[in-house]
Amino acid sequence: MTMEVVSGEGSDIGALEALESNVRSYSRIFPAVFSQARGSIMSTDGGRQIIDFFSGAGALNYGHNNHEIRGAIVEYLASDAVVHGLDMATPAKLEFLKTFSSIVLGQRDLQYRMQFTGPTGANAIEAALKLSRKVTGRKNVISFTRGYHGMSLGAIAASANHFYRSGSGVSLSGATFMPYDGYLGPEVDSADYLRTVLLDKSSGIDCPAAILVETVQGEGGINVASKEWLRSIQAVAKDTGALFIVDDIQMGCGRTGEFFSFEFAALSPDIVVMSKSLSGYGLPLSMVLIKEGLDAWRPGEHNGTFRGNNLALVSATAAINIYWRNETFSLRVQRMGQLMRSRLEAIACEHGRGCSVRGRGMALGFDCQSAEKAEATARNAFDKGLMIERCGPDDQVVKFMPALTIDHEVLEQGLEIFEESLAETVR
Amino acid sequence: MTMEVVSGEGSDIGALEALESNVRSYSRIFPAVFSQARGSIMSTDGGRQIIDFFSGAGALNYGHNNHEIRGAIVEYLASDAVVHGLDMATPAKLEFLKTFSSIVLGQRDLQYRMQFTGPTGANAIEAALKLSRKVTGRKNVISFTRGYHGMSLGAIAASANHFYRSGSGVSLSGATFMPYDGYLGPEVDSADYLRTVLLDKSSGIDCPAAILVETVQGEGGINVASKEWLRSIQAVAKDTGALFIVDDIQMGCGRTGEFFSFEFAALSPDIVVMSKSLSGYGLPLSMVLIKEGLDAWRPGEHNGTFRGNNLALVSATAAINIYWRNETFSLRVQRMGQLMRSRLEAIACEHGRGCSVRGRGMALGFDCQSAEKAEATARNAFDKGLMIERCGPDDQVVKFMPALTIDHEVLEQGLEIFEESLAETVR
Amino acid sequence: MTMEVVSGEGSDIGALEALESNVRSYSRIFPAVFSQARGSIMSTDGGRQIIDFFSGAGALNYGHNNHEIRGAIVEYLASDAVVHGLDMATPAKLEFLKTFSSIVLGQRDLQYRMQFTGPTGANAIEAALKLSRKVTGRKNVISFTRGYHGMSLGAIAASANHFYRSGSGVSLSGATFMPYDGYLGPEVDSADYLRTVLLDKSSGIDCPAAILVETVQGEGGINVASKEWLRSIQAVAKDTGALFIVDDIQMGCGRTGEFFSFEFAALSPDIVVMSKSLSGYGLPLSMVLIKEGLDAWRPGEHNGTFRGNNLALVSATAAINIYWRNETFSLRVQRMGQLMRSRLEAIACEHGRGCSVRGRGMALGFDCQSAEKAEATARNAFDKGLMIERCGPDDQVVKFMPALTIDHEVLEQGLEIFEESLAETVR
Amino acid sequence: MTMEVVSGEGSDIGALEALESNVRSYSRIFPAVFSQARGSIMSTDGGRQIIDFFSGAGALNYGHNNHEIRGAIVEYLASDAVVHGLDMATPAKLEFLKTFSSIVLGQRDLQYRMQFTGPTGANAIEAALKLSRKVTGRKNVISFTRGYHGMSLGAIAASANHFYRSGSGVSLSGATFMPYDGYLGPEVDSADYLRTVLLDKSSGIDCPAAILVETVQGEGGINVASKEWLRSIQAVAKDTGALFIVDDIQMGCGRTGEFFSFEFAALSPDIVVMSKSLSGYGLPLSMVLIKEGLDAWRPGEHNGTFRGNNLALVSATAAINIYWRNETFSLRVQRMGQLMRSRLEAIACEHGRGCSVRGRGMALGFDCQSAEKAEATARNAFDKGLMIERCGPDDQVVKFMPALTIDHEVLEQGLEIFEESLAETVR
Repeated sequence: MTMEVVSGEGSDIGALEALESNVRSYSRIFPAVFSQARGSIMSTDGGRQIIDFFSGAGALNYGHNNHEIRGAIVEYLASDAVVHGLDMATPAKLEFLKTFSSIVLGQRDLQYRMQFTGPTGANAIEAALKLSRKVTGRKNVISFTRGYHGMSLGAIAASANHFYRSGSGVSLSGATFMPYDGYLGPEVDSADYLRTVLLDKSSGIDCPAAILVETVQGEGGINVASKEWLRSIQAVAKDTGALFIVDDIQMGCGRTGEFFSFEFAALSPDIVVMSKSLSGYGLPLSMVLIKEGLDAWRPGEHNGTFRGNNLALVSATAAINIYWRNETFSLRVQRMGQLMRSRLEAIACEHGRGCSVRGRGMALGFDCQSAEKAEATARNAFDKGLMIERCGPDDQVVKFMPALTIDHEVLEQGLEIFEESLAETVR
Repeated sequence: MTMEVVSGEGSDIGALEALESNVRSYSRIFPAVFSQARGSIMSTDGGRQIIDFFSGAGALNYGHNNHEIRGAIVEYLASDAVVHGLDMATPAKLEFLKTFSSIVLGQRDLQYRMQFTGPTGANAIEAALKLSRKVTGRKNVISFTRGYHGMSLGAIAASANHFYRSGSGVSLSGATFMPYDGYLGPEVDSADYLRTVLLDKSSGIDCPAAILVETVQGEGGINVASKEWLRSIQAVAKDTGALFIVDDIQMGCGRTGEFFSFEFAALSPDIVVMSKSLSGYGLPLSMVLIKEGLDAWRPGEHNGTFRGNNLALVSATAAINIYWRNETFSLRVQRMGQLMRSRLEAIACEHGRGCSVRGRGMALGFDCQSAEKAEATARNAFDKGLMIERCGPDDQVVKFMPALTIDHEVLEQGLEIFEESLAETVR
Repeated sequence: MTMEVVSGEGSDIGALEALESNVRSYSRIFPAVFSQARGSIMSTDGGRQIIDFFSGAGALNYGHNNHEIRGAIVEYLASDAVVHGLDMATPAKLEFLKTFSSIVLGQRDLQYRMQFTGPTGANAIEAALKLSRKVTGRKNVISFTRGYHGMSLGAIAASANHFYRSGSGVSLSGATFMPYDGYLGPEVDSADYLRTVLLDKSSGIDCPAAILVETVQGEGGINVASKEWLRSIQAVAKDTGALFIVDDIQMGCGRTGEFFSFEFAALSPDIVVMSKSLSGYGLPLSMVLIKEGLDAWRPGEHNGTFRGNNLALVSATAAINIYWRNETFSLRVQRMGQLMRSRLEAIACEHGRGCSVRGRGMALGFDCQSAEKAEATARNAFDKGLMIERCGPDDQVVKFMPALTIDHEVLEQGLEIFEESLAETVR
Repeated sequence: MTMEVVSGEGSDIGALEALESNVRSYSRIFPAVFSQARGSIMSTDGGRQIIDFFSGAGALNYGHNNHEIRGAIVEYLASDAVVHGLDMATPAKLEFLKTFSSIVLGQRDLQYRMQFTGPTGANAIEAALKLSRKVTGRKNVISFTRGYHGMSLGAIAASANHFYRSGSGVSLSGATFMPYDGYLGPEVDSADYLRTVLLDKSSGIDCPAAILVETVQGEGGINVASKEWLRSIQAVAKDTGALFIVDDIQMGCGRTGEFFSFEFAALSPDIVVMSKSLSGYGLPLSMVLIKEGLDAWRPGEHNGTFRGNNLALVSATAAINIYWRNETFSLRVQRMGQLMRSRLEAIACEHGRGCSVRGRGMALGFDCQSAEKAEATARNAFDKGLMIERCGPDDQVVKFMPALTIDHEVLEQGLEIFEESLAETVR
């Protein structure tokens, strides 16, 4: 294969406009052609180096092109092992099953069956909701304000964002939205409200098959649920016969400081949904963890062509072996998260005027309270060499999700750019 | 990464049973651990060689681990080019856009915008249906008996198989099923029936946003629509203001003898949905082709983490460059398809007793008329070294989908095994 | 109560326009104030006498203000018997139950439990569909092209007319429309098609809770199902575990020549839905007949304020006693129906040019093949003193539904006016 | 018509059981045959006199067989005026339109178009929701915990009671339930919560077509919304482009002390839904009041056979003329309501132990806090000669809805029976 000569970014963006659908988004927000990437640095075609605090929306927890992981992939490819085999048994899959089971689950005293779905988070959510409905014979799913779970019809029905919902072109049904932790203000425990309506025979809220929750809402604005609230929600699920599902697509794989985002609250979800950083290398992979007694699937009842993405299973196994055999990595993430948080709080103090910081581990949000301020700051940052995303209902929150493996200096450098960018905006 | 010693297939299947969800399917039908694969031959852990007539359900049109394509992937990985970047611009994407546009579309005088969705066929179908509903302001979609389009809630609603439908646990709505070509018998033109109900103000069939069709139904039993019927359906769509969508997920990328399965009928679909063999190497990739005037997406309205799977774009570009720059490959597929067909017809004659052959190009079905006969034959074949899948409402059709690149001798060998397996079954 | 002086029709229509919703319809089509009515003659405020071939869309099978029935109502009112008591036991209800049971059901060797729903046909249909879903645990309902069953959300979902469907403002789901008898032309048996899709595991048509059918479609254009087709449909329901429901709202109570419209085919529906002429006096009343083994309602599970309309039960009992104790009335209806039919066929021959006549008993349709012709003819007729409605997908069918009790001369007179009106239109 | 001899209540109940569907409810709760009724007294076949505090679930605000109204009906019947004429113009309808407009609306400075729907509250609710969806192009409807609006599919979707909802046999969609006034406790203003989620772009609550509210929830347990809350809800509707609908089916026609239940809060609903006591005599009648600018119906878009129930229009006109020409009646209802309330509060004090009284006007609830206590009390009361219903999610609230015209002594007598019955239960 010979690459045609790409003359410059301008003409390339022109090619995108002419050939790629109008739906494209990040190529607008980050208007450059990105030719290379390594760890936390991306390089554009034009030679600019950009610090990445975005990490593929959480799919690159171990950084771009992590060479330790890359070795396993390249070796696998070179060996002519099976790359595509639907869900046939391969050494790559067996190895992953055993590694995940012994290292990730075993060390945490958890027991789950693993289901590999089509390699998108949305598909894994679809499978989790299907299974809940199948197991309970109920249809309704409790979801939360600001929650986000994916774009296919079953997943978007349980997602709160109106822009995405209206894009579906049909009436979305099957989910009831309840206030997330803190949504009704600090005095009201929204878990109590949920318990009340689910036990009330005349609340209008149909008995749910599942309660679907993120422990920290990523797209929704880095909203953090407390340990107590999460435990209450889990108890409500139990008491009302609903399955308790944690969507750990964005917050799992170490993002909050532990492998699963729910460990800090000692939760025991019936189902856990994983994707994004699971493969460790940005390759498509998704998995649904199912408590054994709930694995009511009939063979083949939920399938998909790419559900056994062997290359991604290989990199996923490597990532677990490299980062999760002991606590070292987890502790580093927690430490770096605290550093980031302190620094961001200082920035908020200095330049923020009403801004605030929230999050857990290395998933932090800097709430600018204003979409304009957040947007200008992120734009400034990109101009100065920092890639950073926004989130929240009005995109008013700047989202800090650097690679968990980021070097201390690069992190500092990125935070400095952010501070300058904010200061410039505020001026 | 050190692979643990895998002691033997028996214990491995035991590990699968203990650790993988009950939903697993092909590891039951083909009970072996597949350690290597090349072209049309898969090798088990135990050293058996198996001819693959299944091709990852159509995801491996160019064979397993096609080395010409592999080179591009390995080179890309080695260069630290961007593997994951959501839908940011990368040389890999630009190259694919230009190559697909100039070689695939240009040679066929077609013009489409390309949308990359989450890398599963289901997700691409979801996007196509969403867009149709958005563009037309209508909700209903016309789908066909025996049609199959995916497992997420929007896709399964338009899929005919009851086993899959009932697995969804909710009432599926938004699609109306009409008889596919030939479903009402040879005397009734089901396209006329469709036209009648869509023009009737009191048919109960709501005006559709789209008519979604496979030119050959893969999962449904290798049912072939005629050129005339397809053209009639396209005309009905046009006359009723519906978008005409061809689902070319399984039948595209050369499977029927031409790149798009609809070329033989000179169709001009409003939307084409592609996946499976698009990446050329079994890597997850999906794409929606949209006529320019219909590209009504707002930026980001349909997104997904793995929608820009650069590694797959690289292999996809390589595959196009290798196989589709001129007609050579297409002619070979047609020739091999004819060979297969003649041979299968002879087998049907000799051993079939009521069996019949149908299909187009290298997508052929051998209808055993009986689920038991088909199942026993496929089981026998696997024992004798041939991997072959079944399809149709009762799994009574044996499905022949070898790699398009299969060697002539290997093809012959596989067909011979099939003949013996059928003969053994019939005895 | 003193009636205010109503000065003239013009100002009254003005009052309607100012005060009544734009949704009003018949006051537009028949622009007069109707002050009195007796048998088959209505009188306007201005003193015109109009022959009624419309009969309140089938609610006045025994004519306007039938004095034999009126006596029972007035006597009941005078006695201070219970008029409103929800579904408490009253002599009026007990009397109706016993009378309907012994005379209507007993003579036909039928056994049904009677459910009184809110006094509209739509509500009775809602109850019948609910019960079917409850009994079978399924959701889908098979309905037919051109079928009409009511305006509430459950009923309209099973009704074919697009104008009404689109008025609902939501996506209607839960019903699948199949071709009615003859819809696919004389060569295709649409009952066979229904059987095929319901037995096909990959038809996309979910197993139905019920098959809902009118033996003659009233609103749909006086489409007549054959005895054989109806029996086939009943057999399909039985063989697929669906309930067989006959909607006899418009065609029951003698309209087709027998009390139930399905007697001619010796059907035994699981559920029969009745309303319109059931009360015999145009008073609101509805009833669902349920085979005893299917009466799975829990007490109060479907209720409604006016479900025990005692006044209507009194008139209903009277009507049964007067008209259905023996065969005399039924035979008269059949004879009059034949007369009407012959006369209409002669008119079609003489003036029709492509017109045709269809129907059963005294439910006849004169298909003008053109909405304009039908509309002009009906307008002419009203000007000349005949009230006649139109039906069918384009309102191209003139609908003949005179009172079953109409005098022979009045019938002839009305037919004569129709002939003149048609002739005038054709000229 | 000759009534067959009814030998005694026992055998009659046997006839009910044999012939009427198991769905019957009040004939179980009040196990007697009611042969006559006048004002607030019902008489059983066996000669018992029973005081009626139930009033046909609110359909008999002016008492049973009110002779002043009866005169108008009997006269109408005797005159052979049109009883059934679908929605054709009749003097009876014109008279009602003018009377309602001048007396009811005119005196309150309100302006509405009147739509007559099928004569059930459910049907009127269906029409109101349809119209809201049509006008706004939105699908969702905001409904409230404990709300009740009817049994047809569109109405039940907006009703909170799980027993009724589950009876529908399908997944109900199209409504979102929000906490009613006080549901979240006295400290939380649930109107604020509603405003928050409707203005939040990521709440998951789709923009509503309408907010549908009862000012006092009847079936839900006589829950009273405050003036402030109702005004807030109306403001939320206005600010979010939703229609504000008051369901005045049970609480309208004077029940709360004024003709419309929302007058006390000076609301100006976009749509008002009426039924139950509208006809004044227990005859089926329903009406939707629509602000002129919102009357977007196309002619005939929502219809129904009994939508112009002339007999009920005649009694409705009479009732308005008799009771609503001036304030006298309204003031009496308010006075009687206060009397009842004081007396019930005294009873709660004396015998209640945790019981409480709530309501407005002559719609009062005595909350027993326990289903058993409420049930035993109501049963005792019936044995002692008082008919009284229960409501609330667990049927723990005894509902006081005597005729608004009840004599002072009869009211006292009924309350005395209640006190004794409660005392007996408590002992």
